[in-house]
Amino acid sequence: MKETPIAIIGLGLIGGSLGLALGTADPKESPFGRARIIGYDANKQAMRTARGRLAIDEEAPSAAEAAGRAAIVIIATPVQAVREVMAEIAPHLHQGALVIDTASTKAQVMRWARELLPRTASFVGGHPMAGSEQSGIDAASIDLFKDAIYCLCPDPQARSEAVDTAQALVETIGAKPYYLDPEEHDAYVAGISHLPFLLSTALVEMTSRSPGWVEMQALAATGFRDVSRLASGDPTMHRDICLTNGPAITRWINDTIRFLVEVREAIAEQNTAALDDLFNHARQVREAWLQRTPHQRPGEPGPTPGREDLGPTIGQLFMGRMASRRRREEK
Amino acid sequence: MKETPIAIIGLGLIGGSLGLALGTADPKESPFGRARIIGYDANKQAMRTARGRLAIDEEAPSAAEAAGRAAIVIIATPVQAVREVMAEIAPHLHQGALVIDTASTKAQVMRWARELLPRTASFVGGHPMAGSEQSGIDAASIDLFKDAIYCLCPDPQARSEAVDTAQALVETIGAKPYYLDPEEHDAYVAGISHLPFLLSTALVEMTSRSPGWVEMQALAATGFRDVSRLASGDPTMHRDICLTNGPAITRWINDTIRFLVEVREAIAEQNTAALDDLFNHARQVREAWLQRTPHQRPGEPGPTPGREDLGPTIGQLFMGRMASRRRREEK
Repeated sequence: MKETPIAIIGLGLIGGSLGLALGTADPKESPFGRARIIGYDANKQAMRTARGRLAIDEEAPSAAEAAGRAAIVIIATPVQAVREVMAEIAPHLHQGALVIDTASTKAQVMRWARELLPRTASFVGGHPMAGSEQSGIDAASIDLFKDAIYCLCPDPQARSEAVDTAQALVETIGAKPYYLDPEEHDAYVAGISHLPFLLSTALVEMTSRSPGWVEMQALAATGFRDVSRLASGDPTMHRDICLTNGPAITRWINDTIRFLVEVREAIAEQNTAALDDLFNHARQVREAWLQRTPHQRPGEPGPTPGREDLGPTIGQLFMGRMASRRRREEK
Repeated sequence: MKETPIAIIGLGLIGGSLGLALGTADPKESPFGRARIIGYDANKQAMRTARGRLAIDEEAPSAAEAAGRAAIVIIATPVQAVREVMAEIAPHLHQGALVIDTASTKAQVMRWARELLPRTASFVGGHPMAGSEQSGIDAASIDLFKDAIYCLCPDPQARSEAVDTAQALVETIGAKPYYLDPEEHDAYVAGISHLPFLLSTALVEMTSRSPGWVEMQALAATGFRDVSRLASGDPTMHRDICLTNGPAITRWINDTIRFLVEVREAIAEQNTAALDDLFNHARQVREAWLQRTPHQRPGEPGPTPGREDLGPTIGQLFMGRMASRRRREEK
């Protein structure tokens, strides 16, 4: 049976979950046949745990060594570390190797790839729209990517077969490939992913810095819990995202400040109509989003009944979109 | 067997859940014996549904009529409507009646009670720290208040027995009474409840007003879903909270703007250390809060193992605190 050696560098929540999902894919169904997962993490304990959990088949002594043994190299470290990993593995990549990453920002990573990786390898930027406020190999799960959107940004120099391989990888772990430009990606995720973790962090920081926090925290309930959830995310990941997606995040911060000033004025004027419009609009938008977009985690209750009646599912929209994206890429 | 007639005015999520919880309490265990629930809602359909769901035993033709039949009157309308309900029921209240509300802000409500209710009745402001982004009688549930904190702000003129009755009511529905001053209450909940729904709303409004929303919304996943959850809450409730707790909310808005400016500067300076500190601190604070405070909904997975080892539970802390609060009130 065909065997494909796949290196995963960085064995945290994402790297570990990738290993679990790839390692357990049915070799008869998978385009990779049996995936042989070579893992590396600078943290030896994480690497041992990944092995113990069967997220990887073998431990490599270095990122370079892992890359040198593989046809596909997945870099699943925090963003800032991607650069040094690329520099380290570059001389060891096989002719025709596919390199893919999982970082939350893409434009910076794509520039590093062009600068550091050899022309003989193909780079496809990747970003799974799935995660958890928990981090590390212990939080890894086999179905983290199930039905999640997986953003793909192929380097313009990437070979067509390498892009196909990246897409097959995404499909093998149960995710949906979604092609877009790195700059588009970074602007969009700044709004729907980075702004949310900043607002979560703002909520926790503002309330906990207040002299009333000791008493206040006892009153905080499920609303506080959910809005603050992302403040429990990996601090290094959050820091790196801010450092590599500064301009897009700054635009959203400015928008948020403008919005808060707007609300403050409506309150000062006791402007009932403006507040009514605001909260009604936000509710409508969110309800429409909930109906259209997959947002369930594995094991959570399914979509509300009647969803089928709402026209094409987001999955169908994606498929159409993806095909057109692919065609554009292939021109 | 003893029977206590209890009026619930306003049969939405909160009023309906109160009716369900009171109506099904074991009459042999309850200090009220058999609770007879008289319901009123301006929306006749909601009232019929409440009856059909057994959240109430009888429908009253008006708030005044409901109050005239009861020993305990619960006002469970949005904040702004509390005032007119008080004016309407005032002439119909029995000698010695307890009036309690459920509104999210307390100082304004306490002023209305002093202005409008007769001295022969006792008012205790109330606010259950439980809810859902769903609203209306259909979302009502029998265990909404189970283990939730229930803030109580007795009017200084309220009779001691009336305060005892309010506390018994809270305990009967499975919640934990928590005494505090109305101004304290409003300042605290502005931070842990009102600021969260404003941030949820800000997230939805900012992203959905953006030209990229059509594409962006497809990428939004569980992080966006949770941080935006409260934007699906009742718009009238949100509006009324802004109108009746303006100064406290404005202070939190100003704090948030200052915080966002701080983050924007750290990003502009690429200040790795400042961003590290920020995200690490927020995570630590939230994890400590999760360990200490009940924040599970009925049916959700229980607390993480090992929680028992963390010293006195928040419940024990509350009990001590509550006793001391009670003593202070009784002086």
